[in-house]
Amino acid sequence: MPDAPARSEPPYRARLDAVRDTLAGLGVDALIVTHPPNLRYLGGFDGSLGALLVTSSECSLIVDGRYITIAKERAAASEGLRHLRVELAPRSIEEGIASEWARTKAAAVGVEGAVMTLDRFTRLQSLIPARFVTTERVVEAARMIKDHGEIEVMRQAARMLSAAALEALAAVRPGRSETEVALEVELALRRAGFSKPAFDTIVASGPHSALPHARPGTRVLTAGDGVVLDFGGVYDGYCVDLTRTVQLGPASGSFRRIFDAVREAHAAAIAVVRPGIAASAVDTAARDTLAARGLAEAFVHGTGHGLGLEVHEEPRVTRPGTARDEILRPGMIFTVEPGAYLPGVGGVRIEDDVLVTASGCEVLTSVPIDLEGDGAASGRHRGLGEEPAGD
Amino acid sequence: MPDAPARSEPPYRARLDAVRDTLAGLGVDALIVTHPPNLRYLGGFDGSLGALLVTSSECSLIVDGRYITIAKERAAASEGLRHLRVELAPRSIEEGIASEWARTKAAAVGVEGAVMTLDRFTRLQSLIPARFVTTERVVEAARMIKDHGEIEVMRQAARMLSAAALEALAAVRPGRSETEVALEVELALRRAGFSKPAFDTIVASGPHSALPHARPGTRVLTAGDGVVLDFGGVYDGYCVDLTRTVQLGPASGSFRRIFDAVREAHAAAIAVVRPGIAASAVDTAARDTLAARGLAEAFVHGTGHGLGLEVHEEPRVTRPGTARDEILRPGMIFTVEPGAYLPGVGGVRIEDDVLVTASGCEVLTSVPIDLEGDGAASGRHRGLGEEPAGD
Repeated sequence: MPDAPARSEPPYRARLDAVRDTLAGLGVDALIVTHPPNLRYLGGFDGSLGALLVTSSECSLIVDGRYITIAKERAAASEGLRHLRVELAPRSIEEGIASEWARTKAAAVGVEGAVMTLDRFTRLQSLIPARFVTTERVVEAARMIKDHGEIEVMRQAARMLSAAALEALAAVRPGRSETEVALEVELALRRAGFSKPAFDTIVASGPHSALPHARPGTRVLTAGDGVVLDFGGVYDGYCVDLTRTVQLGPASGSFRRIFDAVREAHAAAIAVVRPGIAASAVDTAARDTLAARGLAEAFVHGTGHGLGLEVHEEPRVTRPGTARDEILRPGMIFTVEPGAYLPGVGGVRIEDDVLVTASGCEVLTSVPIDLEGDGAASGRHRGLGEEPAGD
Repeated sequence: MPDAPARSEPPYRARLDAVRDTLAGLGVDALIVTHPPNLRYLGGFDGSLGALLVTSSECSLIVDGRYITIAKERAAASEGLRHLRVELAPRSIEEGIASEWARTKAAAVGVEGAVMTLDRFTRLQSLIPARFVTTERVVEAARMIKDHGEIEVMRQAARMLSAAALEALAAVRPGRSETEVALEVELALRRAGFSKPAFDTIVASGPHSALPHARPGTRVLTAGDGVVLDFGGVYDGYCVDLTRTVQLGPASGSFRRIFDAVREAHAAAIAVVRPGIAASAVDTAARDTLAARGLAEAFVHGTGHGLGLEVHEEPRVTRPGTARDEILRPGMIFTVEPGAYLPGVGGVRIEDDVLVTASGCEVLTSVPIDLEGDGAASGRHRGLGEEPAGD
C-alpha cells in the first residue's frame, strides 16, 4: 500500500475562519455542526458521532466516551487544533452541546438544515434557550473548494483508482458472475491502497446494464453482454469514483450507437468545464449531445456530483432547477458521468473525475474508454484522443 | 459463496398492517417513509434514495429515474408487493411525495422524526397543505421483532461470521500492521459470503486497544500486544457483528485481570437475557460485574445494540435513562459487548450476537473466547464453557 503523500497539516484555522465569516454574515452567533464529514473537515475528528459548537472566538468538540481519548490526543498533537476544546458528553451529545452553549450564551444558534433531524432539533430546543436558525451548507460551501493538500490527496487517489480500474476491467470475462467481478473490483481497490470502497460497487451485465443503480447479482457474464462497472475508493478520507462500460465480444449496432453517443456526451461535458460557467452548463453539454442522438429520455440522471470527504457532495452537475446551480471555481472536483439506458437493450455510462483549474479542467482519472472488454487484458487500449477519426 | 438460504418472501403485507395499526392509534392518516432500511423493510426497495407514502388503504413507492425500472420489476415479481404503486418522481422525491399525497388528501401526515431533516421537512411543508405529525420509530418498532425469515438469514450470517472470525484471528501475528490485519479480516468476510463489511473494521493493537473505536493504522503488531478485533458483515441486507480480544504472547497480570473481568461481564449479561426483562437489565448485569472488579469507569459505552437491516438499531442495551429502554421480546436480536479501557494499559472488548427466544436466548455467534492470539491457528481453542474452573 502506498504511503499517503507527505502533506502539511490541513489548514484548520483557515477553514474555521471561513465558516466564522459566513456565520457573521448570517447574524448567527454559534453553529452546531454534527455532520461527520464536517466534523472531520473543521475538527479533524473522524468518529461516527460527535458535535462541534463554533462561535466567533471558540470551538468545542463534544464526543462520547468511545472517542474522548483519541479526540484529545489528536487535538494535542496538531498545531491547527490547539484551539479546540475537547469535551466529554457524559449522557448524550445534545446535553454536551447544551453544556458548551451555556458557557457562551450565544443568542442566535445555527443548525445544519441538511442533516439536522426533527428529533435532535426538538431535543436541542428543549435544552438550549436560544433562537435557532436553520443554516444551509455553511461548511459544505467551504468544502466545495479543495485546498492544496486535498487536491494532492485526490490526485493520488485518482491515479490509484485508474490503476485499480485496469485490474478490474481485466476481470470482466464470460463465465464470471457479477458478484465475483464485484469482489475482484474491491480486491483491486484494496491492492491499490484504498481503505475501503466509496460505495457499493456496481457490476451490471446484459439487461441489468439498463438499470443505472443495479446491484451485482448471481447473473453470469456471457459473450455479447455489455457490462457497466461503477466503483470508487476512499483514500485518506477522500472519495474518487469511476465508471467504464465494456462489451464482451462484438457489440451489436444498437449498443455501439448508444456507447458512441455517451462517449461523445462525456467528452462534450468535459470540454466545457472551466471557471465561471454554471455547473448546469456541463450537464447541458452532455444532455444536448445525447438528445441529438435521440437519447434525451434515456439519460435518467444528472451528469455529475462533487467529490471529497463524501462521495456525493456539492457541486451538483445537473439540469437547472433540480439542485443548487453553482458557478464553477478553481478547486472544485466533481464527476462527469453521462449515461443512456434503454430497457431491453442495455445501458452505458462513462465517468471520470475532474478538477476545475484556473483556465479549464484537469481530468484526474485516466483509463482508456474502450467498448471491448478484453482490451485491458490484451493491451489493446485506445485512449479517448486515440479513437480513429469518425469512429 | 454459500447460496442465500431458501426462504419465503418477506411478509410485506403483515409488516404494512403492523405499521397501519400504529398509525391508526396515533391518529395519523398517512406516513412518509424515507429511511432506506425502512424502505427495504416495507417496500422491498434497496436503493439509496426514495420514499413511501403509506395510508390506510394504499402504499406508493416514489423513486427517481435511476431506480424506476428495477423498482417496477421487483414489485411486479413479488406477490407481497402487488399492492405497491411505483411512481417516478420527475424532479425531486419531495415533489413525487406531494403528487401522491394529492391523490389521498390525507389530513394528518406523519414523518419520521429520527431521520427527517429540517430542510426536507420545510420543502414538504411548502408542497403539502396537511397537518404534519412527527412520529417516533413507527417502522423501527416493527423491525425490532425479527420474523422467521429474518431470523434464518441472521442465524446463517452469524455462522458465516464465526467462520470468518477463526480465519481473522489466525491473521493476528507479530510483524503485521493493523491495516494489513484489517484487510485480512475483510477478505475473510468476503470469502465467508458477506457482500460487504457492516462497518469499518477495527483492529486496535497495544495502546490503541484502549480506544474503543480506533481506526486501523500503520502500527505493527508486536509480541506482548493485546489486540481488539471488531468486525461485521452484511448478508442479504442483514448485519452481524463480533469482537474478540487476543494477546500476542503471555499476557501481563494487569491485562489478564481486565480480560477476565470483561469475559465475566459478557457471560453475566448473556445469562440474564430473556423475554420480559428490560434491555437495561442486561447492561446492568455487565456493568455491575465490571464495577465489582473496579472497572466501572473503564466501561465507557453501552453493553449492546440491536442488529438487523442496520448495524445499530433498536433495542439499545445501555444504562437506564440514556436510550429508550425496551422490554425484551422473542425475536429481538442484539449484541452483547462489554469492554474495559485503561489508557496506557490497554483495552478489552468481547462481543457476541444473541436472539431472544421464548425462554431465554440463543447465542448466534460461536467463536472461542481465548486471550492468546495464536489459538485460532494452533487449534488450542477453549470455549467459554470449557475454561478451567476458577480461571
